[in-house]
Amino acid sequence: MDAASTAWILAATMGVSLMVPGLALFYGGMVGARSILNVVMMTFGAVAVTAFVWTLFGYSAVFGNSYGGAGLLGDVTAHLGLGNLIAEDPNATLPPALVAVFQALFAAITVAIICGAVVDRVRFGSWLVFCAVWVTLVYLPIAHWVFAFDSADGSLLGGWIANELGAIDFAGGTAVHINSGIAALAIILVLGRRLGWPRQPRPNNVPFTALGGGILWFGWFGFNGGSALAAGNSASVVLLTTFNAACAAMLGWLAVERIMDKHATTLGGVSGVVAGLVAITPACGAVSPLGALAIGLLAGVVCAFAIRLKYRLGYDDSLDVVGVHLVGGVLGTLLIGFFADPDAPNGAAGLFYGGGFSVLGIQAVAVVAVLAYSFAVTWVIAKVIDLTLGLRLSREVETEGVDVRVHGEQAYDLDGHVHAPAADLATREHEVVASAEAALATDGPAPARD
Amino acid sequence: MDAASTAWILAATMGVSLMVPGLALFYGGMVGARSILNVVMMTFGAVAVTAFVWTLFGYSAVFGNSYGGAGLLGDVTAHLGLGNLIAEDPNATLPPALVAVFQALFAAITVAIICGAVVDRVRFGSWLVFCAVWVTLVYLPIAHWVFAFDSADGSLLGGWIANELGAIDFAGGTAVHINSGIAALAIILVLGRRLGWPRQPRPNNVPFTALGGGILWFGWFGFNGGSALAAGNSASVVLLTTFNAACAAMLGWLAVERIMDKHATTLGGVSGVVAGLVAITPACGAVSPLGALAIGLLAGVVCAFAIRLKYRLGYDDSLDVVGVHLVGGVLGTLLIGFFADPDAPNGAAGLFYGGGFSVLGIQAVAVVAVLAYSFAVTWVIAKVIDLTLGLRLSREVETEGVDVRVHGEQAYDLDGHVHAPAADLATREHEVVASAEAALATDGPAPARD
Amino acid sequence: MDAASTAWILAATMGVSLMVPGLALFYGGMVGARSILNVVMMTFGAVAVTAFVWTLFGYSAVFGNSYGGAGLLGDVTAHLGLGNLIAEDPNATLPPALVAVFQALFAAITVAIICGAVVDRVRFGSWLVFCAVWVTLVYLPIAHWVFAFDSADGSLLGGWIANELGAIDFAGGTAVHINSGIAALAIILVLGRRLGWPRQPRPNNVPFTALGGGILWFGWFGFNGGSALAAGNSASVVLLTTFNAACAAMLGWLAVERIMDKHATTLGGVSGVVAGLVAITPACGAVSPLGALAIGLLAGVVCAFAIRLKYRLGYDDSLDVVGVHLVGGVLGTLLIGFFADPDAPNGAAGLFYGGGFSVLGIQAVAVVAVLAYSFAVTWVIAKVIDLTLGLRLSREVETEGVDVRVHGEQAYDLDGHVHAPAADLATREHEVVASAEAALATDGPAPARD
Repeated sequence: MDAASTAWILAATMGVSLMVPGLALFYGGMVGARSILNVVMMTFGAVAVTAFVWTLFGYSAVFGNSYGGAGLLGDVTAHLGLGNLIAEDPNATLPPALVAVFQALFAAITVAIICGAVVDRVRFGSWLVFCAVWVTLVYLPIAHWVFAFDSADGSLLGGWIANELGAIDFAGGTAVHINSGIAALAIILVLGRRLGWPRQPRPNNVPFTALGGGILWFGWFGFNGGSALAAGNSASVVLLTTFNAACAAMLGWLAVERIMDKHATTLGGVSGVVAGLVAITPACGAVSPLGALAIGLLAGVVCAFAIRLKYRLGYDDSLDVVGVHLVGGVLGTLLIGFFADPDAPNGAAGLFYGGGFSVLGIQAVAVVAVLAYSFAVTWVIAKVIDLTLGLRLSREVETEGVDVRVHGEQAYDLDGHVHAPAADLATREHEVVASAEAALATDGPAPARD
Repeated sequence: MDAASTAWILAATMGVSLMVPGLALFYGGMVGARSILNVVMMTFGAVAVTAFVWTLFGYSAVFGNSYGGAGLLGDVTAHLGLGNLIAEDPNATLPPALVAVFQALFAAITVAIICGAVVDRVRFGSWLVFCAVWVTLVYLPIAHWVFAFDSADGSLLGGWIANELGAIDFAGGTAVHINSGIAALAIILVLGRRLGWPRQPRPNNVPFTALGGGILWFGWFGFNGGSALAAGNSASVVLLTTFNAACAAMLGWLAVERIMDKHATTLGGVSGVVAGLVAITPACGAVSPLGALAIGLLAGVVCAFAIRLKYRLGYDDSLDVVGVHLVGGVLGTLLIGFFADPDAPNGAAGLFYGGGFSVLGIQAVAVVAVLAYSFAVTWVIAKVIDLTLGLRLSREVETEGVDVRVHGEQAYDLDGHVHAPAADLATREHEVVASAEAALATDGPAPARD
Repeated sequence: MDAASTAWILAATMGVSLMVPGLALFYGGMVGARSILNVVMMTFGAVAVTAFVWTLFGYSAVFGNSYGGAGLLGDVTAHLGLGNLIAEDPNATLPPALVAVFQALFAAITVAIICGAVVDRVRFGSWLVFCAVWVTLVYLPIAHWVFAFDSADGSLLGGWIANELGAIDFAGGTAVHINSGIAALAIILVLGRRLGWPRQPRPNNVPFTALGGGILWFGWFGFNGGSALAAGNSASVVLLTTFNAACAAMLGWLAVERIMDKHATTLGGVSGVVAGLVAITPACGAVSPLGALAIGLLAGVVCAFAIRLKYRLGYDDSLDVVGVHLVGGVLGTLLIGFFADPDAPNGAAGLFYGGGFSVLGIQAVAVVAVLAYSFAVTWVIAKVIDLTLGLRLSREVETEGVDVRVHGEQAYDLDGHVHAPAADLATREHEVVASAEAALATDGPAPARD
C-alpha cells in the first residue's frame, strides 16, 4: 500500500467534502431571500440521496468490470453495499474504501451542481427522486466511461472514453461539468421559466456567494489534485495549474464586465473563479502553468459572454449552470487539444506543441458523446418525473416563497436586533471618537485629504 | 517515524480546527439575533481556555501513566507544560506534539459543544471558569478512560474503558458526545430555563447553521479519520462510514419532520447530519458501509423525536445538545453491539454478525459509567460556580440582549445599506431585462409554463 | 522524492488557499454594509493579480540563484513561466511545482493583507496595479532575503537574511507580516483618512469576521506547518505552538478590553486570535508550548493597546493592519530572542534559555531591514500610482457607497423576506409551544428560575 498517497487522498477527500456547503452558499447567496434555504436543501439533499445509490450499486457500476468489455457500464453486482471494500487489501495501492468515498463525493457534487439551474420552482421530493434516478442512469455510466481505467493486468476492464478513445480528462471536465451543465439545460427545458422571468429578485447575500466560491476553490484543489490518486509530481502540478486558471478566469470575466457594463462585479469575479476551475478540471494535468493562465483567461472571457445567451434564447438558467459548467467544461476539454504540453503529467502534445489535430479530435468525440447521452437521458428522466410525481411547484408556492411554503422556515430573522445606539455601545464609541478628535485638534502627524 | 501517517494527522488536525468556527456558526445561526455573538464567544472562549489546561497538565492527565495502574487518571506531572514533547523522538510512530495538538482540539470541542444548551443566560466569565474546571475534572479523567491505550510493552498504562473493559469507541462517542450531552443536561438543571421559554426568538440566520453544519461535517472527517492515527485502511473505511451515516441521518430526520410536521426543514436536515455524525463517531471503525447507513438512519429518526422531549419534560436544552449529542452518542455506542462487522477495522462481531451479546454488554457499561460520572461531577461544578461566582445572567441583561449588554456589540448593522434601485444598478438591470424581453417577444425557443 | 512530505504540503497548500475567502470575510464583516463587496474584491483581486506576477517571474525572483551571490534578489529568468517546473524531478525532495504554488499563496496573502488598511477609499483598478507592482518590487526581494536558503551543495545561493544573517523566521513574520503591516502604514500616509473619520459605520456583520478569523486560524496551520516543508516533528511542534499562541492571544486581548472598556468583544477576541497567529508565525518552530502561550498572551495584550494608537496619532488604519500585523510581527520576531528553546525545531537558545543577546540582535537586524525597505519602496509606489492613475476614490463615490458605485452591486437584499408569521410557521410553532406549556402546567420536573 502507498501510505503517503493514502494520506493525501484522505486529506483531499476531506477537502472535497467542504464543497457541499460551499456550493450551497455559492448558489444560496445568489437567489432571493425567500428561497435560499430551498437551494441549500437541494444541495445537501442531492448529496444524501447519492450516498444510498453509491453504496448500494453506484460504485460497482462505475468501477466494476465492464459488462461484456464494452466499456459502457460496470458490473453493478461487483461490490453491492460496499461490504467487500472494508477489509485490508495488501495488494491495493490505495485502500478501496478511500477511492469509494472520494468518488462518492464526485457523484454527489455533480448532481448537486444541477440544482442551480432550476431554483425556485422544483418540488423538493421530486428533486430527491430526480437525483437518485439521474445518478443511476446518467452519472454512473458516464463516470464509468471516463474514470474507469483498465487494470494493468487486464483483469478488470473499464470505460471506453478512458481506454479505447483515450481522451484526456484529468478530474471530470466531461463526467462532471459537461454532464451536469447539459443536464441542467435538459431539465430547464422540461421545467420552464420562473414566473416573472427575466425579472427576478436580487441576490440576497453576495458575501455568501463569494464565500461559497472561495470554499469551492479550496475544495477544487482536493478534487483536481486528488484525482492524481497519488502524492507526487502530478498532484503538485495540478495544484499549480488549478490555482493559475482560477486567478486568470477571474480577471478575464471582470475585464468583460468592465468593458461591457462599466462595472466589475463581485458576482462576476466569483463566477469567473468557478468558470476557470471548471475549465481547468479536465486540463489540470495536461498543461503548463502558462497554459493554465491562458485557459483560465479564455474561460473567464467566454463564460462571461455565454451567460448572456440565456436572455437572447429565452431559457431560465437561473444561476448560470449552463453558461459556466457546460461552456467552461467544453472549453477546457477542447483546449487540451491546443495547450497540452508533453512535459505535463498527461504527457500529451496539443496543437501548439506540435501534436497535430489528433488530441483535439479525440477530445471532441468525448465531448459530443457526453453531451448527447446526458441531454437525452436527462430530458426523459425529467419529463417522466414531471408527468408522474410532478416536477414543478405550484404557482401559489412559487409566488408566496419557497422557503416558507416548502420548508416551513425563513432564512433570516434579524428583528430581535438592536439598532438604537444602546448605552453600552454609545459610551464606548464616544470615548474613542473623542480621543481621536482631540488628537486631530492638536494637529496629528498623518496627512488627511478630506 | 511513520511520515505518511504524520502527514495525514497533520491534515486531520488542521481539518478538526475548522470545527471551531463551524460549531460557532452552527449554534450562532440558531439563536436570536441579539445573542449570536455571545454564542460565538462561548465557543471560541472554551477553546482558548482549554489550551491552557491542556498544556499545563491536561495532556498528562489523559496520556500520562495511569496512577496506580487503576486506569482512572494519568500522571498529571508526566508532561507538565509539554516542553518534553518537542524534541524529535526517533522511537515514536507519530510525533508526540502532533498527538498533543490533535487531542487538544478534542478536549476543546467537547467542552464547546456544551454551550449550545445554555445560550442566552450564562455569564461569560463564569462560562470560561466552568470550561477550565470541567475540562479538568470531567473531560480529562474520561478521556483517559477511553483514549489512553496501554503501550505494547506494558510500560505505560492507560484507561480502564480502553483496556480492561475493552469497549469500542473509535473517535469519542463516550468521551466526547455522551460526555458533553449529559453535562449539558446537568448544567441546564442548575441553570434553569430562559425567560419566556418555550417562546423564544426565531433563528437569526439559518444559512449560518447550514454552513456551520457543513463545516462540522468536513472537520468530522478529520476527527474520526484522524482517530485511526495512521494513513491506511482504517482511516479510509472511517471516511466512508462517516459520510454514509451523515447522509442517512439527514434523510431520516427529514422523513420524521415530513410525516409529523408536513415540512422537511433546513434546521432538521442539518441537525440530522450532525446527529448521524455523532452516532457514527464511536462506530466508524466497527461497521460496514451498509451498517453506517443503518446507524445514520436510526440516529436521524431517533434524535428527531428525542429533541421533542424537552417540551414534555420542561427542560430548556436550547439548541438540542442533549437530544443530539447525548441521544446520538448513546445510540451509536450501543448500536455497535448490533452492527459491528468483523471485517471492519475494529474486528468485532455484533449481534447481527453472530457475535452474541458480549459487545453490547461491554458498550453498555461504558455508556453508564460516562453518564454517571459526567452528570454527577458536572452538576456539582455548575452548582458551586453558581453559588460562588454566579452562573446566570441577570434578568435585565437577558431581557435587553446578551450581545449588547455583555459584549458591547451587535451582530449586524445593515442600516448603511442602499435599498433604493441606485442609478448604476438600475441602468444595468434595465438593459438585461430589456434584451431578454425583446428576445421573448420574438418567440424565444425555450418552453415556458408561466 | 519524499512522498509523505509531499502529501502534507499538498494538504497544507489546500488549507492555505482557504485563507483567501477567510481574509475576505474577516475584513468584510468589519466594514460598513456599503463596502463589504469592495473589500472582498480587493482580497480576491490581489490574489488573482499575484498569480500572473508569480508565474511569469515572481517565483524566479524569490527562488532563483541570487544575483552576484549578494542575497538581494533571485535570477528572474531562472524559471520564466514555470514551464520548467512541471516535469518529474527525481532529485527533488518536494516537487518544485508544489513549492511554487504553496509560495504563490504566501505572496498573494501578503499583499491581500494590506487592503484592510485602506478600505472604502481606493480605486479598484489602481489597487490591482498596486498589487502587481508591490509584489514585484517589495514582496519578491524580501521573500528572497527570508525564504531562499542556500542549497546544501552551494550551487544555488539564497537570500541574506536566511543565510548570511541567519535570522529565525519560520513562516514569515518578517516577509509576510512586518512587510504587509509597514506597507499598510506607507499607503495610508499617501492615501489619507476616510471622510468623516474617526466616525465610521459600524461593522456590518461581526459573525462574518468571526468566521473569517476561524478560517484564517485553520489556514494558518497550513501556512506555519507547511513551512516545515516536511511531514515530521517540526510541523507537529508548529501546529501545537500555533494553536497555543492563538488561544492565549485571544484571552490576552479580551482581558485588556475587559479592564479598559468593561466589555470583552467578539471583534476583540477574533482580533486577538489573529494577533497571536501573526506573532507566532516567525516563532512557531523556535519555542516551547509554554513559550507559545507566553508569546500569544503578550501579542494579545500589546496589539490590543497598539490599535488604539491610531486615534492618538491620527492615521486611519481602517481594520488595524498596522496594529495587528506590523506590531504582532515585530513582537513575534523579537520575542524569539527571549523565548527560543534549544529543544524546539529551530534549535536556537534565546535569552531565557541561556543564549545571550545574539539571537535578539540578529532578529532586530532583520526587523529593521524589512521595515525600512518595505516602507520606503511602498511609499514611492503608492505615491507614483496616486500621481498617475490616481489611488483614491472620488469624494462622491466614497460618500454614496463603494459597492454600488464601483461594483454596481449591493451586498444584501433581504427585502423579499417574509417577516410576518406565515401560516405554516405559525401552525407549527403553536403546536410546539402548546405542548410545552401543557407540560409546564402539570409541573414539569426541571427547575426554572424565571
